[in-house]
Amino acid sequence: MTQSHMAREVAEIPEAARRFLALATASIAQAAEAMRRADPDVIVTVARGSSDHAATYVKYAVELLAGVPVASVGPSVASIYRRPLRLRRGACIGISQSGQSPDIVEMMRAAAQGGALTVAITNHANSPMAKASAHCLALQAGAENSVAATKTFVISVLAGLALLAEWQQDDSLRAAVARLPEAFAQALTMDWSPLAARLARAQSLYVLGRGPAFAIANEAALKFKETCGLHAESFSAAEVLHGPSAIVQAQFPVLALGVEDAALPRLRETAERLAVQGADVFLTGADAPGATRLPSLPDLHPLCSPLVLSVSFYAFIEGLARRRGFDPDVPPHLRKVTETV
Amino acid sequence: MTQSHMAREVAEIPEAARRFLALATASIAQAAEAMRRADPDVIVTVARGSSDHAATYVKYAVELLAGVPVASVGPSVASIYRRPLRLRRGACIGISQSGQSPDIVEMMRAAAQGGALTVAITNHANSPMAKASAHCLALQAGAENSVAATKTFVISVLAGLALLAEWQQDDSLRAAVARLPEAFAQALTMDWSPLAARLARAQSLYVLGRGPAFAIANEAALKFKETCGLHAESFSAAEVLHGPSAIVQAQFPVLALGVEDAALPRLRETAERLAVQGADVFLTGADAPGATRLPSLPDLHPLCSPLVLSVSFYAFIEGLARRRGFDPDVPPHLRKVTETV
Repeated sequence: MTQSHMAREVAEIPEAARRFLALATASIAQAAEAMRRADPDVIVTVARGSSDHAATYVKYAVELLAGVPVASVGPSVASIYRRPLRLRRGACIGISQSGQSPDIVEMMRAAAQGGALTVAITNHANSPMAKASAHCLALQAGAENSVAATKTFVISVLAGLALLAEWQQDDSLRAAVARLPEAFAQALTMDWSPLAARLARAQSLYVLGRGPAFAIANEAALKFKETCGLHAESFSAAEVLHGPSAIVQAQFPVLALGVEDAALPRLRETAERLAVQGADVFLTGADAPGATRLPSLPDLHPLCSPLVLSVSFYAFIEGLARRRGFDPDVPPHLRKVTETV
Repeated sequence: MTQSHMAREVAEIPEAARRFLALATASIAQAAEAMRRADPDVIVTVARGSSDHAATYVKYAVELLAGVPVASVGPSVASIYRRPLRLRRGACIGISQSGQSPDIVEMMRAAAQGGALTVAITNHANSPMAKASAHCLALQAGAENSVAATKTFVISVLAGLALLAEWQQDDSLRAAVARLPEAFAQALTMDWSPLAARLARAQSLYVLGRGPAFAIANEAALKFKETCGLHAESFSAAEVLHGPSAIVQAQFPVLALGVEDAALPRLRETAERLAVQGADVFLTGADAPGATRLPSLPDLHPLCSPLVLSVSFYAFIEGLARRRGFDPDVPPHLRKVTETV
């Protein structure tokens, strides 16, 4: 049997991470130095699709480590509504695998005109987005042939974390980032087959996370749709009790992405409450009454742990897609580069 | 047959809007004056559930009219992760019907300590959130007995728009806000029965919007879940083509919330594309090939139009809930005040 592009690209994640950290040192240092000089009061992010989930991850990491608020700005604010944002003490981080989508390029230009320091995170260092930005962190992840992004998502978040660690000169995060390639390799070996068995014939599910793991929940829900035809929806583990739990009936599947951080006890409580409601709950990182525990890597930095979980998830979902009869490389109706304007 | 609380509260929206505008003039003027003095570089919003959708609406309105970036901050940043945000040139707008949820109160206190001007939007002027804030816009919407918020959502957004109009001293928005009670009354009479017929037995659907109408799409998706047991999910009309359209098969229902603004041509294109894919598309505000048009009020201010649409939606969904055999006042598993910490 031929290996899918997606399987190959997921397997390449540890090596791509090593390569990025080796090759991007200088550009990270320069962008970090610029961030220290700018000392922004606000950071805006500009991205779509999986890259927007990477931006959400960066948002939580920046807010929790640097204490600077991060606003996701719809590219349409510039491209359609033509409203310049005032960013005189701001920075703008754009994330795009291709660096080509016209609305994102236009928003980067508008942010620079509004006064922001601009940083592009992209796999294409010669792309229009990279050229429109003061700094570029090139992913150097190689070609990504599967329509569903995997390695470029992981390396985009890695780039954001590496930039944050240098900007804040945080030795703990620096050390944790340096260990990520090895952690990614171990994450590929986690066995989530109990979840695969449950989802082989499911239609809907919820994916929960809190803090940076919420960004991974967003990304997981998108991948369930794209590659498995499952109507998966993500929620902050706090939000799910404000309404969405109304449709959680008996045997409704729930994947709760727990990581060892301050939010874990609350996520366990939410998992338990949904299990009491009758849901089939799968939980990483901890045990909870009524929930099935999925394995994950212990003892990671809390800002890195959810990213490592995403690698286990990617390895899992590629297999689930094939089990459900989908070609993970070719989701129905989708193209690799979606150019929105 | 007894009228549901929800039906009664939706019918009260025009009168509640009139009352708010009559009674809140002074507090709006004071908060707006404080915003002008603070001249914030960033606004953070703090909210959960329907109130968070109101905050998303305010985000788009502020970004499009004032050009100031708005970041939604998870209350858990303060309550769980204990990370103070630096908001020395910031403002913080908290939205909560009850004003009681401990995490939101704590985030408002943390924002004030971080240097932000704080404004509470709440139905309970003596609540802990109101007391923790420098300014309070009291909704004065009367009791809301249905678990699913309706009138407090609409009046919360109205409060945000009224504050924005005074802060920016924008006469066009001021005039549009003053006309909203009358527009809400007309919105209650819109006939969306073709959509009700289609959704009487559906399981899943997508709700699309762009700009402030995306906030209404979020709110609509939550209400479909809470009151009708439907797995509805909302997307920006741009995002839906970046992956989620993969599960849109033949007869998949899609509600596209079009309003007369700069994004409408693009929303029509998206609606048409999904219709070509086989989806059952319902579109407000415009015609599109293959889509069923739903009536909406014409000639509104683009920042008010989506809010008026929400009133038509509420009137529609109360009936759909009963048609699907649900009690719209008592969603399964939910309580009115969800206290997350």
